[in-house]
Amino acid sequence: MKKSPLQIARAAYQPKLPKALKGQVKLVEGEKTQSVADQNEIQKLFPNTYGMPLLKFETAGVSTSLNDHRPINAGVILSGGQAPGGHNVISGLFDGLKAIHKDSKLYGFLMGPGGLVDHNYIELTAEIIDEYRNTGGFDIIGSGRTKLEDPEQYDKGLKILKKLDIKALVIIGGDDSNTNACVLAEYYVAKNAGIQVIGCPKTIDGDLKNEMIETSFGFDTACKVYSELIGNIQRDCNSARKYWHFIKLMGRSASHIALECALQTQPNICIISEEVEAKQQSLDEIVAYIAEAVAYRGKNGKNFGTVLIPEGLIEFIPEMRVLMDELNDYLAHHAEEFAAIDKNEQRAYMISKLSPKNAEVYASLPEGVARQLTLDRDPHGNVQVSLIETEKLLAEMVGAKLAQWKKEGKYIGKFATQVHFFGYEGRCAAPSNYDADYCYALGYTASLLIANGKTGYISSIRNTTESAENWIAGGVPTTMMMNMERRHGAMKPVIQKALVRLDGAPFKTFASQRDVWAKETCYVYPGPIQYFGPTEVCDQPSQTLLLEQGKTI
Amino acid sequence: MKKSPLQIARAAYQPKLPKALKGQVKLVEGEKTQSVADQNEIQKLFPNTYGMPLLKFETAGVSTSLNDHRPINAGVILSGGQAPGGHNVISGLFDGLKAIHKDSKLYGFLMGPGGLVDHNYIELTAEIIDEYRNTGGFDIIGSGRTKLEDPEQYDKGLKILKKLDIKALVIIGGDDSNTNACVLAEYYVAKNAGIQVIGCPKTIDGDLKNEMIETSFGFDTACKVYSELIGNIQRDCNSARKYWHFIKLMGRSASHIALECALQTQPNICIISEEVEAKQQSLDEIVAYIAEAVAYRGKNGKNFGTVLIPEGLIEFIPEMRVLMDELNDYLAHHAEEFAAIDKNEQRAYMISKLSPKNAEVYASLPEGVARQLTLDRDPHGNVQVSLIETEKLLAEMVGAKLAQWKKEGKYIGKFATQVHFFGYEGRCAAPSNYDADYCYALGYTASLLIANGKTGYISSIRNTTESAENWIAGGVPTTMMMNMERRHGAMKPVIQKALVRLDGAPFKTFASQRDVWAKETCYVYPGPIQYFGPTEVCDQPSQTLLLEQGKTI
Repeated sequence: MKKSPLQIARAAYQPKLPKALKGQVKLVEGEKTQSVADQNEIQKLFPNTYGMPLLKFETAGVSTSLNDHRPINAGVILSGGQAPGGHNVISGLFDGLKAIHKDSKLYGFLMGPGGLVDHNYIELTAEIIDEYRNTGGFDIIGSGRTKLEDPEQYDKGLKILKKLDIKALVIIGGDDSNTNACVLAEYYVAKNAGIQVIGCPKTIDGDLKNEMIETSFGFDTACKVYSELIGNIQRDCNSARKYWHFIKLMGRSASHIALECALQTQPNICIISEEVEAKQQSLDEIVAYIAEAVAYRGKNGKNFGTVLIPEGLIEFIPEMRVLMDELNDYLAHHAEEFAAIDKNEQRAYMISKLSPKNAEVYASLPEGVARQLTLDRDPHGNVQVSLIETEKLLAEMVGAKLAQWKKEGKYIGKFATQVHFFGYEGRCAAPSNYDADYCYALGYTASLLIANGKTGYISSIRNTTESAENWIAGGVPTTMMMNMERRHGAMKPVIQKALVRLDGAPFKTFASQRDVWAKETCYVYPGPIQYFGPTEVCDQPSQTLLLEQGKTI
Repeated sequence: MKKSPLQIARAAYQPKLPKALKGQVKLVEGEKTQSVADQNEIQKLFPNTYGMPLLKFETAGVSTSLNDHRPINAGVILSGGQAPGGHNVISGLFDGLKAIHKDSKLYGFLMGPGGLVDHNYIELTAEIIDEYRNTGGFDIIGSGRTKLEDPEQYDKGLKILKKLDIKALVIIGGDDSNTNACVLAEYYVAKNAGIQVIGCPKTIDGDLKNEMIETSFGFDTACKVYSELIGNIQRDCNSARKYWHFIKLMGRSASHIALECALQTQPNICIISEEVEAKQQSLDEIVAYIAEAVAYRGKNGKNFGTVLIPEGLIEFIPEMRVLMDELNDYLAHHAEEFAAIDKNEQRAYMISKLSPKNAEVYASLPEGVARQLTLDRDPHGNVQVSLIETEKLLAEMVGAKLAQWKKEGKYIGKFATQVHFFGYEGRCAAPSNYDADYCYALGYTASLLIANGKTGYISSIRNTTESAENWIAGGVPTTMMMNMERRHGAMKPVIQKALVRLDGAPFKTFASQRDVWAKETCYVYPGPIQYFGPTEVCDQPSQTLLLEQGKTI
């Protein structure tokens, strides 16, 4: 297979490992833990894996029992959307298992959790692992979205685990996958199956983090790729001086990616969904907010700018959520009737059927978006929010408002737009040094948790704004991060999703500067991820993490 | 102004300069030249700047007259679309002028050629220049699309040039801007104005090249940015295994960018406009070609892939060009009548008015594209081809064909798509080492052409697939590249646009491998541009250039 020069050079990179994981390692047990909320319910659901202590690995002065371990067979699964660094979690896990004993084996289940259930797997040999070190993507074994939620799946999985003499399973996934990993851990303990389950925190969205998990892997790299592109667009914007660029960024519900990219690039505008919800802003208010910045800059001869938009925005606008709820509900009961109506009459039909307030909001939407809201439903009958082109919606509506203001003499200037959506461009980038190191350490730590017989833990690496030497490796009981939430009509134990905190340092830093960014042109150009240069260029964590840990940026 | 760590580190980069430009430099005159075609007409139009010799700079053994030159004042203009490296042309020019004499001055005319006509300029001091070394964008003085075509403009320009005691003007632009630069050079000689005009070959599109101009600057960097993104998407594609990504790439008429990106990333499919035209392919044939690859891969369980589409494709499909001609013509005479028709009836109306063959093609187009073809006209009444979403057009039409084949039992598999358009993401990226060096050398060479009293030349750097030390610096008479072409109804002298040559090594290399790429998965992942690593990672020219110069890739 042909490789690029960078692929070849990057393969030789040896991820930095915390000092504590080098040489002889000992396990230190910390305090017993509680779940973040709903302690009684969570404890009842996880009698065997609740309340376990925090774990930390430290350098051992003398040889410990770990170091004359017998071989360990382990399995690994990639679950859900891709994130840069997944291959390094696997190579760290592999190297850790081999350090424990050279005859340890690692099996990879193919195309996500479904590979466990359906017994599709390969053995990950050194030859395979070496092909994927420090590369992006999940193609080493593929990923998938099958949810492990059903005891029948667990039992099917158990068969192949037993057959391969696998002692532990590492599940690399987001909040849902880690929740399910913990349910599986509990199930196997209850069944005395002899299978440990360890999770690893993955997602570019950055919404799987808490006191003990500083960040989910992939967030750093994905944000750096998007920021490279935003920076490039801003240079263009500032050179050509004729377009407003509306840029939507992946990230599901949370606005972490948009916020991080804003901190890296200093765009004119960045919308934060969590703030929109907290302030109960209407679509018209958001449109007016952007239009005011356009008008201000236009008055000063600056008919250009950039607007960052988080993917999940539409759901956080209260009036839009209410509208979508009514649409979902109405169309669930009138799907055939609606489908029978001439396409050109559907909009008027919908307006006639909606309650007055929703009809008004619906009527205010540009035609394309209004149509999207009535088509494209997911298997549950809901609007597929990720398909809504919010970037076009806002660009069009801002244009309409400015045209109105122009008539009223309140706006002079030209308004032309370009729209972009960045997501797939960053999910499989080769990991930054930060993610390469962080992921490798997560995987390596997982091997130590396995060797120490632990289950129901998430691999944890902390203190990552310091040099890698001083990173703290350990494990966090997954139950510690859980609370009860309503999902599909029933209360379920789940890991709390971390949305952007409006009282957190990243948002507050952004909020304190954004008025200047809107008026002046304060663009920063991060450029592409560098792997070989000076450490201040190559080894920086995200701005979000630095601020969360009290550092200045 | 806040800067990213990479901006700060990159500012210190000292572009590599050809050996011949270091120290004492002497000018060697080569053979007299002829225009590539229409020699009589071109000579008649350029009596003073036609037939001049090729120029080459060489290391001088002894001090030459150049080295005790008096100060030179020069002006510089950025013309047309942004391309990575423009700032380095200017810094090379600045350093060259200062090396000639420390009291030389460089003036920048603002926002393109219009700055010369309207007397908007700044003096580019060392302080300003240092802020922009090795950065992307044209924001140092801005760019613009005003065309210098009119003697009145030339005379207005002359006033400010005289006032500032400017001896020479450097115009950084594409084929049209360089043509106009030569007309201006001729005008000023004829008028004995004492102003030299030198051009520099700029455009990411790569269509300004010939025997003496190996490549236009910016092509290298832009292609590397797009290839980074295509590579990332291919990793995702190969991990998630569920989408076909249709990726449109900037590049105007020529398919150089698409071809270069294909050579760098080995996608499943890449369409080359020049081939479509040569083979007189219909839209349906292109759709069938893609659908066949999708079907083949689907049969083998590979329901994913990538398709690269050059921006200008639609104009190269003979039947589409004929259709657009009729639409342009019809709508020019029936604009009001058409506008008065209900939007939902416009398609049927158009079909009823078009000639039978065009009506058939028009009826086969998806609704959105059909609408685009009747709206969005430029000031000349033509369809704005760049606004046509060819990537969506092809994705939809391939989907429709596959659905048909499925009914006929000829296709099994799933077909889901994602579309992308990359352009603004790369035009203002910070230049690769190649472009940083190439541009700096172009600018430095321009200063030497000025010092030697030359006018009507384009700065030329050749042999750039060798190490920068051995690059050949000189000048090419602009008239040498010209021929006569019909523009807006009249014959004009213009620099021949270089389209992809189907008998050239880049296309032939691509064509010899593409069948394997379509069937297998041969993705290459170039990753982001690196500035600090090993030379094989950081200093490579484009694949196109390597192949054109007989190198292997």
